[in-house]
Amino acid sequence: MQDMYLAAAEPLLRQETGLQEAKDQSRIIKVFGPGESQVEDLLGEILDRQQDYGIALLAQEGEVTIKISVDDPDPEKVRQRLDQLCNSIVDALGPNVIGTGEDTLPGVVAKLLLKKGMSLAAVESCSGGLLSKMITDLPGSSKYFWGSVVSYSNQAKQDLVGVKGNTLQDYGAVSRETAVEMAVGIKNLSGVDIALSITGIAGPDGGSDEKPVGLVYIGLAYKDTIEVKEMRFVSDRIGIRTLAAKSALDLVRRYLLAEEGAK
Amino acid sequence: MQDMYLAAAEPLLRQETGLQEAKDQSRIIKVFGPGESQVEDLLGEILDRQQDYGIALLAQEGEVTIKISVDDPDPEKVRQRLDQLCNSIVDALGPNVIGTGEDTLPGVVAKLLLKKGMSLAAVESCSGGLLSKMITDLPGSSKYFWGSVVSYSNQAKQDLVGVKGNTLQDYGAVSRETAVEMAVGIKNLSGVDIALSITGIAGPDGGSDEKPVGLVYIGLAYKDTIEVKEMRFVSDRIGIRTLAAKSALDLVRRYLLAEEGAK
Repeated sequence: MQDMYLAAAEPLLRQETGLQEAKDQSRIIKVFGPGESQVEDLLGEILDRQQDYGIALLAQEGEVTIKISVDDPDPEKVRQRLDQLCNSIVDALGPNVIGTGEDTLPGVVAKLLLKKGMSLAAVESCSGGLLSKMITDLPGSSKYFWGSVVSYSNQAKQDLVGVKGNTLQDYGAVSRETAVEMAVGIKNLSGVDIALSITGIAGPDGGSDEKPVGLVYIGLAYKDTIEVKEMRFVSDRIGIRTLAAKSALDLVRRYLLAEEGAK
Repeated sequence: MQDMYLAAAEPLLRQETGLQEAKDQSRIIKVFGPGESQVEDLLGEILDRQQDYGIALLAQEGEVTIKISVDDPDPEKVRQRLDQLCNSIVDALGPNVIGTGEDTLPGVVAKLLLKKGMSLAAVESCSGGLLSKMITDLPGSSKYFWGSVVSYSNQAKQDLVGVKGNTLQDYGAVSRETAVEMAVGIKNLSGVDIALSITGIAGPDGGSDEKPVGLVYIGLAYKDTIEVKEMRFVSDRIGIRTLAAKSALDLVRRYLLAEEGAK
């Protein structure tokens, strides 16, 4: 339907109404990490100073989409103003910016991995295959994605990835320690450059006071570094799984960006 | 929104308009396997003889949804007629019927596995984690789902699941032989009752005359039986992956149903 509209209806409507092409007057910037109100804080004066332009924020599945519009009859002026605004916003938000327009987290991670010639593998527990699905939704993902283990049971964590029985017993499947052993285990098994692990409680059952539904550990093993992030998502089962998978991709993205910056 | 409508708006509308509850006058039957025209053929006279009832078919992602409606002021007559029609349709379609109403393939498979106290594991190649995601979308899936391997690369197929290098070389990753070794490999590794494997070409690239995009092998290892189905799906990447994952679930469903029937 969208394709049909763009190909047939839109040019006709534009001809009839004499309106300029709307997409030339607006741009999209996508953000992952901070919530909508944090993005507002970070943008600060850029939001306050809306005079000759408009900014709209849309928060969805952990991402904040920023739409900037400039209304001016001169297309060249519009382009310049949009460039200027985009630069200010990217400066204000730094590495929280995923990309523009049609960019997605899996797409941006794919570009970075391909650019650096690096490979990726994963071990997923509570996300149950969703991270792997997101990565392999993209054609050509076999160029950088080795594969993954969906270690839904403790037995799979031990037998396939080499998580120690003692670790599971002492700290539990949902713990920083297990996340470390999952990431290191798949990295050693596969020989990839970067290994991700996700273990958490997606609910609705299985939570406790100490480890509530929404608690997720995300591990990243890269060279000799192992980082584990503890996240506490407030959402339903589908939301928690989606946020966990996206946060894992975002962690890779930030690592690769930081490495580029450090050079 | 749907919950809000059902809880607040619908009762009010019914009160205002005096209309009977629509859902009491209709039922849903869900079918997987045959396409829309095949379902029409199988239903035959049931479709032709529409006098005091209506039947509508909707095909979506490999499933055909049949909606039967009966319009009669007497609720008891409606109920009886719907029972009768449902029985005729289930007789005509046999094991192609997944279920009724809100039933889904993963949900029906879950019920059958729980009833029999059986466990499931999988190896996914072209579906890239989608099958595992569908299974683990359901809360409580850890009761029957051991986990899976997303063996996206050939190395993962060999190192994690034990597919032989010779098999990959002689027959290719997308072959009946590889599907067999994938299913048997994960079954031996995990010790589950039923193991599934999926290997195919989701496209848009990677197809050839001999092995076109959409060719998918689905393997099932159960007790001493190994079955492999060759499927040729005509769809885009997302469609092929979805059909592959659903077909794998459907294969388990039919196996467990057949076993029940044989008792």
